[in-house]
Amino acid sequence: MTHQAKLTCAALQQRDIDDPLSAKRAAFYLPDNTLYLDGNSLGAMPKIAAERAAQVVSQQWGEGLITSWNRHHWIDLPFSVGDKIGHLIGAAPGQVVCCDSTSVNLFKVLCAALSLQPARSKVLSVSGNFPTDLYMVEGLSALTGNNYCQLQLVDESELEQAITGQVAVLLLTHVDFRSGRLFDMAKLTRLAQDKGTLVIWDLAHSAGALPLALDECHVDFAVGCGYKYLNGGPGAPAFIYAAKRHHAMLQQPLTGWMGHKMPFSFSTQYEKASGIAQFLTGTPPVISMSVLDAALDVFADVDIAQLRQKSLALSDCFHQLVSQNDGLNELERITPYATAERGSQLAYRHPQAYALCQALIKQGVIADFRAPDILRLGFTPLYLRYIDVWTAVEILADVMRSGEYLKAGYQIKQKVT
Amino acid sequence: MTHQAKLTCAALQQRDIDDPLSAKRAAFYLPDNTLYLDGNSLGAMPKIAAERAAQVVSQQWGEGLITSWNRHHWIDLPFSVGDKIGHLIGAAPGQVVCCDSTSVNLFKVLCAALSLQPARSKVLSVSGNFPTDLYMVEGLSALTGNNYCQLQLVDESELEQAITGQVAVLLLTHVDFRSGRLFDMAKLTRLAQDKGTLVIWDLAHSAGALPLALDECHVDFAVGCGYKYLNGGPGAPAFIYAAKRHHAMLQQPLTGWMGHKMPFSFSTQYEKASGIAQFLTGTPPVISMSVLDAALDVFADVDIAQLRQKSLALSDCFHQLVSQNDGLNELERITPYATAERGSQLAYRHPQAYALCQALIKQGVIADFRAPDILRLGFTPLYLRYIDVWTAVEILADVMRSGEYLKAGYQIKQKVT
Repeated sequence: MTHQAKLTCAALQQRDIDDPLSAKRAAFYLPDNTLYLDGNSLGAMPKIAAERAAQVVSQQWGEGLITSWNRHHWIDLPFSVGDKIGHLIGAAPGQVVCCDSTSVNLFKVLCAALSLQPARSKVLSVSGNFPTDLYMVEGLSALTGNNYCQLQLVDESELEQAITGQVAVLLLTHVDFRSGRLFDMAKLTRLAQDKGTLVIWDLAHSAGALPLALDECHVDFAVGCGYKYLNGGPGAPAFIYAAKRHHAMLQQPLTGWMGHKMPFSFSTQYEKASGIAQFLTGTPPVISMSVLDAALDVFADVDIAQLRQKSLALSDCFHQLVSQNDGLNELERITPYATAERGSQLAYRHPQAYALCQALIKQGVIADFRAPDILRLGFTPLYLRYIDVWTAVEILADVMRSGEYLKAGYQIKQKVT
Repeated sequence: MTHQAKLTCAALQQRDIDDPLSAKRAAFYLPDNTLYLDGNSLGAMPKIAAERAAQVVSQQWGEGLITSWNRHHWIDLPFSVGDKIGHLIGAAPGQVVCCDSTSVNLFKVLCAALSLQPARSKVLSVSGNFPTDLYMVEGLSALTGNNYCQLQLVDESELEQAITGQVAVLLLTHVDFRSGRLFDMAKLTRLAQDKGTLVIWDLAHSAGALPLALDECHVDFAVGCGYKYLNGGPGAPAFIYAAKRHHAMLQQPLTGWMGHKMPFSFSTQYEKASGIAQFLTGTPPVISMSVLDAALDVFADVDIAQLRQKSLALSDCFHQLVSQNDGLNELERITPYATAERGSQLAYRHPQAYALCQALIKQGVIADFRAPDILRLGFTPLYLRYIDVWTAVEILADVMRSGEYLKAGYQIKQKVT
């Protein structure tokens, strides 16, 4: 970075003028006086999503009542939304379904993968994985015993050596929620499958943020989140990817009526649907899923390679501005530098990261904090401008210079439930 | 019924005038030219729910973005909505949580109950139970083996004798989805607990339809649905009731981050929350849950005993009108007559029930069909008038007289997934 010319405000303004994605910003509602660097936690609201919410509630529910299950294709939403997501993650139709939460879906694909591995029980992951993924494995393990499911956690540096012929399932989150580190999906999937291991990828921080090629990488299973880069709204339903080659043989235990071959025959015996529908459990949350459906249409004409390019450029600019400002040298970057090794966020370690984050929010720069000491900044190319990056770093520098964040009001308060 | 005076249109108009709940109808949007007798499948839309949908999307998400998790109390929704439902089902605060679908929730409470019964594995239910409940037991059984969970199905007539000291869990749906038969919750709960059996009630067709007293009946666990009599919108999130006395000892396997004692500490080890929060798994579907939250406010000033009285009166009137019309004597009532033995619906058997239902819908009377031969009519006292019952029976008689429903266009087409 030290050899680069100093990045100027004018240069960033020029990049906005040249940005092929600049028109997409108009598809989103963005509040005044706010710089939103947290689209990796909750995506901003596409205007079309608000229109769809009104439509599904007042017209489809209010006016159409129960008949909308067919008339407005509510019954097909898990599949139509699934295929739209499939298009963004490199999955041919019929392999992605929208349902439940990422955690519940992880339980389903974990059980599905283990059902295909009768002679193995080890589920390998890294200790820095998003906790809910690990908790779901722990939950299954406590229920079924170690002979069926046993969690093995290793440090990232030991991951490749730990993939042995004993491992039933390799469970990884593609982009680390803290550091933003990106795993090599093709390489790790191949390494695992060479040992007879099935692979589950959690795409929470990569779907909608970077090009994905699940079919091409021969991935077995994946789960992901609708409310981050897919902009589906708070708590939007999640999704499951299951490669077609596994559909016939797999079993998953959350066998609700929507996963039945003929849900409306009301048969006493469960008979699983033949395709991706076998991952459905209960009745889909139609309002939330319709909002996600609309939000996905924003991607219809987006070139994901272009999106990725802008995402990397935005974060490069951010980091260059941080680097060239002496007042910001307390921020220790933990996100890898190589573009092949990082997602669409930057993470900086700072002992007062929580307080800094609160002070930034007060100044209209919405970032987020991850315990114990990480300031996390998400770069969402559909609605962020280069000039926003400039302003955000200016405000960050002001906040650090003033020392305001060191006051008591900004200190952490943790809620225990 | 034969000794009753003939019920007239004028008498029903008078009942509407005298109805203490008549003003509630204005709280709902009801489409023109529609008589809605399917609120037991999907409740009609409270106007306040549409307002709340717009607010949660445009203001809370659009304007507040990620900060709304705290500012607009999204993080507390599962508990605040849970307690509102608790108020309707006779549960003291802190014992009901809103989350996931009924099916997923059933899996959680089933595992929770079995975790408290280490020496027993039998799950007793009736063969007419709603299929998804049985499928979830089958799914758990297939995962864990019969030594942990084994489904035993009996006919309703054999239920009481089948409750023995071998049964771990008695799993019953309070109101039968086909016939509308209502179980005696207090009696069956006591019978079961006398044998050391824990009880799970599925309240899908009773929450919001009739008085419930879960605490008083000493119920162990319950699940229920947000989109039927609670009017929470299509696929509204469901709920779990777990008696406080079980909170400390129980275990359930869907241990997602929202059920962790300190979700935002991002600890690698799962440590369950101490209260009802331990039943949470993933991130709540905020938009759908907010709509349900608003819908529940419609009940704030409703006397549930009064609601029940009107529900029974509406269905009594319906049946009396059917009985006094010779053209309707092909309809065989399968719902019990005694008020203590039925919920808020009527079910009639007819070989052409599907076609009849389609023909009724075409005439603006929305009823529903349950395979193989049941015409089901739901009576929702918050928005149905006595005069609607009159009109519905008139139209039903017209439909049967014309024979229109026997044409090919009305015959069943079943979708296979």
